[in-house]
Amino acid sequence: MLTAPVRGGAGVRVGIGDDAAVVVPRPGRDLLLTCDMVAEGIHFRRAWYEHQPERLGRKALAVNISDVAGMGGEPRFAVITLAAAPQVPVEFLRRAYCGLADLAHEWGVSIVGGDTVRLESGLLLDVFLVGDVACGGALLRSGARPDDLIVVTGEFGLSRAGLDLLDLKEQAGPPAAVTAEDRAAAVSRQLEPPVRLREAAALAGTSCLHALSDTSDGLANQVHLICEASGVGAVVREDQIPVSPVAGRVALARGADALSWALFGGEDYELIAAVAPADWDRVQAAMTAAVAGSRLTVVGRFTPERDVVLERATGAREQLAFAGWDHFRVSGTDGGPRAEAARDGEYGGS
Amino acid sequence: MLTAPVRGGAGVRVGIGDDAAVVVPRPGRDLLLTCDMVAEGIHFRRAWYEHQPERLGRKALAVNISDVAGMGGEPRFAVITLAAAPQVPVEFLRRAYCGLADLAHEWGVSIVGGDTVRLESGLLLDVFLVGDVACGGALLRSGARPDDLIVVTGEFGLSRAGLDLLDLKEQAGPPAAVTAEDRAAAVSRQLEPPVRLREAAALAGTSCLHALSDTSDGLANQVHLICEASGVGAVVREDQIPVSPVAGRVALARGADALSWALFGGEDYELIAAVAPADWDRVQAAMTAAVAGSRLTVVGRFTPERDVVLERATGAREQLAFAGWDHFRVSGTDGGPRAEAARDGEYGGS
Repeated sequence: MLTAPVRGGAGVRVGIGDDAAVVVPRPGRDLLLTCDMVAEGIHFRRAWYEHQPERLGRKALAVNISDVAGMGGEPRFAVITLAAAPQVPVEFLRRAYCGLADLAHEWGVSIVGGDTVRLESGLLLDVFLVGDVACGGALLRSGARPDDLIVVTGEFGLSRAGLDLLDLKEQAGPPAAVTAEDRAAAVSRQLEPPVRLREAAALAGTSCLHALSDTSDGLANQVHLICEASGVGAVVREDQIPVSPVAGRVALARGADALSWALFGGEDYELIAAVAPADWDRVQAAMTAAVAGSRLTVVGRFTPERDVVLERATGAREQLAFAGWDHFRVSGTDGGPRAEAARDGEYGGS
Repeated sequence: MLTAPVRGGAGVRVGIGDDAAVVVPRPGRDLLLTCDMVAEGIHFRRAWYEHQPERLGRKALAVNISDVAGMGGEPRFAVITLAAAPQVPVEFLRRAYCGLADLAHEWGVSIVGGDTVRLESGLLLDVFLVGDVACGGALLRSGARPDDLIVVTGEFGLSRAGLDLLDLKEQAGPPAAVTAEDRAAAVSRQLEPPVRLREAAALAGTSCLHALSDTSDGLANQVHLICEASGVGAVVREDQIPVSPVAGRVALARGADALSWALFGGEDYELIAAVAPADWDRVQAAMTAAVAGSRLTVVGRFTPERDVVLERATGAREQLAFAGWDHFRVSGTDGGPRAEAARDGEYGGS
C-alpha cells in the first residue's frame, strides 16, 4: 500500500516482500534489539502533525535510534508497523512513512519490512529497530561506580515546554507571552527528538564510560534507573543542570517551573553517562573534537550511599523524586496525551 | 507492569531492562526479521478469548513464528509491544502475555524486550521476531521453477470455518448443525494457529526445495505471490486440495463453499513449497520420518505460462482469483473483524 521509496542497504539480502527479511549480521558484533511505539492520543495528537506528518514518522524512528545510541551502538535495520483507522487520510500515512524513510536513510538504517494494519480507531507507529555494537561492548545502565561523574549531553526541559505550548493552543487559551522563535524551538523539539548517535559514538569511542543511557523518560528517572541497575546512589546538583534557556522563558511565561520540566519533563532524548573523574577531560575533549557545538555537562556524582538526592543551589538536600514524564498529566478535560500514561513502561520496569 | 516469567535463553547477553536488549548472533547464520500485529476488531474480537486470553498471546507469537518457518529458519528472539485501553482488564493482559511467554518457551524463543502502551481504545499485540537460518540458506518465494510440484502441509479451510462459527455465535443466530467436536476443532484453529517449525525444518533439511512460504493469507494468494516472485504460472487442481473434512461439514451446515474457504479463507498457517518432481519421493520420505502424522500434498504444478489457473474436477480451467482472506468480509452490521482489511498488507505488496 505504501509506496515510499525503500532504499536497500548494507547487509540486506532480502528486504520487503517475502515472509521475513533476511539480513547479514556483521562479524564480531552483538545485536541490539529495541521497539518503541508512538500512539495517537497517548504520545501525540494528530493535529500537531497535520501540516508536517513527516515529522511524526521521523519521531517514531528517532525514539528507537535513541535507544540504540543509549547502548553505544549503531542502528542498522528497521521493521515498521503502521496501524491506522480508516479516518486517517492515506496521504497523512504516506507522508509520515516518507519522513521515517528519510530519517532512516540519513542514519544508514535499512527498512527491511513492515505491516500496515487497519485499526478501529486511532493511529500508531510501532518501530522495531536492530542495531549492533562491538562484541561485549554494549554500554549498560549497570556499570556506574561510586564517585563517577554524572554527565549529560545537550539541554533539558525544551520538549516539555513544547508540549505545554501545544496543549495551550489546543485548549484555545490566551496565547503565552513567548516569542515566535522560542515557540518554534520548543514545539519542534516536542514534535521531533534529536538524534544523538554522533555524540554516543564519540562517548563510546573513549572507552571511558562506565554506563550510558538515553533520557527519554526524564533526567531524574534515568538517574534513578542507573542507580538501581548499578547499586549506587547519586547527588544531582540543581545549579549544574543544563536547563534549556528557551524552556526557562516558556516556563516563566506560563507560570511553570523550568527545573521541574528539565528534571521530570522527559522526551529530551539526550544521553546520560557515568564517567570516572580522572577521565572527564579526555571524554570532554573527544566530544568537542567529534561533534561541533556539542555540549557535555557534569550534573552531579554517583555515590556509594544508595540515596538519590537533589542538592539545591542553597546547599539544601532532598530526595530526588522517581517520576518521569508520566507523572506530568496534561491539563484539560479529557486528560490528553500522557494522561494515565503510568500504564506505559517496559516489562518488569517499576 | 507485566510480571509473567521471562526466561533467559541462549545468546541473550542483556534481556529486558536496559535501553535495548543485547543478543549474540550465531556465526554462519543470516538473520530473519519479521513483525506481525494482531489488533482487536480487525484480527480478533476480545470476546473470543475471554475465557482463554493465553491463546491470544499464543496466536500473536505463532503468526510470527509462521513467517520464520516459511523461510526455513529458526525463531530466536522476540520483542513484544502490548497496547491496550484502560478498559481491558490487567488480568486479561497478564494471561495473554503468559500464553505468549509459554509458546516462546516451547519453541526456544527468548523474549528480550517489550513495551506496554496505553491506548485510547482497543487492544493489540505487536510481536517482532528475530530468527536465523544458515548463511544464504533462507528459502524464498522467488525460486519456484516451471514444472515444480506445488506442495502443501496439512489441511485448509478449518480456520475460516472457525471464524464463521464464531461470527454466528456473536450474531446470536440459530446454532449451526455442527457437532461439538467439529465446532471445537474449527474454533480452536481460528483462535490459535498451528506451528509448523518441525515441518519446515524437515522440508528445508532435504535441500530439495526451490521455494517455501507460509499460507497465512490464503492458499490461492500464496500461489499467486510465489508465481509473481518466481516469474512462473501455476495450475492448481481442485480435486487435490486437502480441504479439511471438518471445514467441509461446517460449510455444508452453513450453506457455504468449503473449497472457497480452503482456497481463500486464509489463516491456515500451513506451508507451501516448490519441489522438483524428481525430488518428491525424497521430500515426502523426509517429512514422514521427521514428523509423525504429518501430511504433505501435491496440489498442482508451477508452469512456464504466467497464468494462475484452477483446474476443476471436471477438467475445466479458470483463472484462480487473487484474493486472500481480506476479501471475505464478515457479515453483520458493523463489518466485524477483517471487514475492509484490504488496507492490511505488507509494504510494497499488491
